[in-house]
Amino acid sequence: MILWNDALIKREDAVVDIEDRGYQFGDGVYEVVRFYDRKWFEMDAHLERLEQSAQKIGIDLPYSLEQLKEYINALLAESDVGTGNVYIQVTRGVAPRNHPFPDLVSPTIVAYLIPYDRPLGNMQQGVKATLMEDVRWLRCDIKYINLLGSVLAKEEAKRKGCVEAILYRDFGVTEGSSTNIFAVKNKTLYTHPANNFILNGITRLVVIDLAKKLGYDVRERVMSNEDLLNAEEIFMTSTTAEITPIIKVDDHVVSGGKPGAVTKHLQEAFDALI
Amino acid sequence: MILWNDALIKREDAVVDIEDRGYQFGDGVYEVVRFYDRKWFEMDAHLERLEQSAQKIGIDLPYSLEQLKEYINALLAESDVGTGNVYIQVTRGVAPRNHPFPDLVSPTIVAYLIPYDRPLGNMQQGVKATLMEDVRWLRCDIKYINLLGSVLAKEEAKRKGCVEAILYRDFGVTEGSSTNIFAVKNKTLYTHPANNFILNGITRLVVIDLAKKLGYDVRERVMSNEDLLNAEEIFMTSTTAEITPIIKVDDHVVSGGKPGAVTKHLQEAFDALI
Repeated sequence: MILWNDALIKREDAVVDIEDRGYQFGDGVYEVVRFYDRKWFEMDAHLERLEQSAQKIGIDLPYSLEQLKEYINALLAESDVGTGNVYIQVTRGVAPRNHPFPDLVSPTIVAYLIPYDRPLGNMQQGVKATLMEDVRWLRCDIKYINLLGSVLAKEEAKRKGCVEAILYRDFGVTEGSSTNIFAVKNKTLYTHPANNFILNGITRLVVIDLAKKLGYDVRERVMSNEDLLNAEEIFMTSTTAEITPIIKVDDHVVSGGKPGAVTKHLQEAFDALI
Repeated sequence: MILWNDALIKREDAVVDIEDRGYQFGDGVYEVVRFYDRKWFEMDAHLERLEQSAQKIGIDLPYSLEQLKEYINALLAESDVGTGNVYIQVTRGVAPRNHPFPDLVSPTIVAYLIPYDRPLGNMQQGVKATLMEDVRWLRCDIKYINLLGSVLAKEEAKRKGCVEAILYRDFGVTEGSSTNIFAVKNKTLYTHPANNFILNGITRLVVIDLAKKLGYDVRERVMSNEDLLNAEEIFMTSTTAEITPIIKVDDHVVSGGKPGAVTKHLQEAFDALI
């Protein structure tokens, strides 16, 4: 079953209209929320961000976050998936194709569960990444479905045998194509400030909070590519990647080619939360 | 009827899958082609650009442009619309949600006709525009369906009582949210060069060609916002806007608040083509 607006229906009964603005303009927002052993992780934070993203592009959700949470709980209740994600998407709705917001339009909401195990191999061994120019728009703070820039970056990374593309603009590193990037040096964590150039990841916030509690300094500031490569450890965070060490950036080996001590310390603390 | 992949079907029979990558990633490209009195305008140029846009993001069209043209001609043949557009969209296809290109995927093609009269009022009287920061990505040369940046700009323009947003980056004016921008000074046309910051509009190319034939100089180069406002005439071009004079940019009156002589000259020459 999937959530389709205000009803749980069979997946094959969902009909996206060809003039849904999500389909013609990428005019929508989304969230991916994790559940471990049928227990939600940071659901409220994700739903609040969904509402904020929608507001930033002028979409009013047709019902409350409480109501949405009830529907999503019903999805989980009727499924037997243990660990996975719920994907939630809200588009502006169906209207004849024209750029400005339509006058009369009702958002389309779709949500469904995806079984997804924890990426334990990547988390334990670390992954390779590649540096790439960030060509995305300047409102990356919105979790929107205009993801072609991230898709092209991730595809190029994959072709290079990497798991992630670390993106940079002329002023320095922003974030990964679907993750936030952290560097560690002298027991201090560095990550890009939460402005319009990055998505302020929920896992990013959880990790910053954990790091501070564990006694690390956290500095949200722009790093040059060189700063990044000079770090003792690098890791990426996201809802599905959790805390994944980056042990190689292009030809540059990081932390001796294995996960660093601070990264592992944070992973242990994260494990205790879920 | 609409074109759905390789068949003409009823609009209500088209079912876009919730996991179509167009719907979840904006992973697709499109074209809008004009027909006047049931005669196509620049169809081949549009179809070639569709194929080029698709290639730029790694989508192979499932059949030839000749075949696509046959289907689109069939759409026109079975309709009774006199003047309008055909909207053609190609997305990467349906696959479980994951950023990189799926291994096995077949593109989704949809095309349908939209009745659309020439915007004679705007073309004769001119329109207002507003300057706005260009926050879109850095691959605007691809005619892709990630249009949220343009949607937000057009919506803000509309709220200000304007028909178009003229976008600028730190180096100068790029293009309109759905048009190309031209300035006229001393019988010379200025417009942004066709690089990654603009879409190289088919109408832009037609107008450049016409202008040269009419004896005007055409310089494809970046203009500062000040250069633009100092122009004697400003106009915008697109498939649906054709050549539309811009007579006011925010509070700045252009060419005495009415269409300029060069713009009108180009409009007459354009009329003769259709």
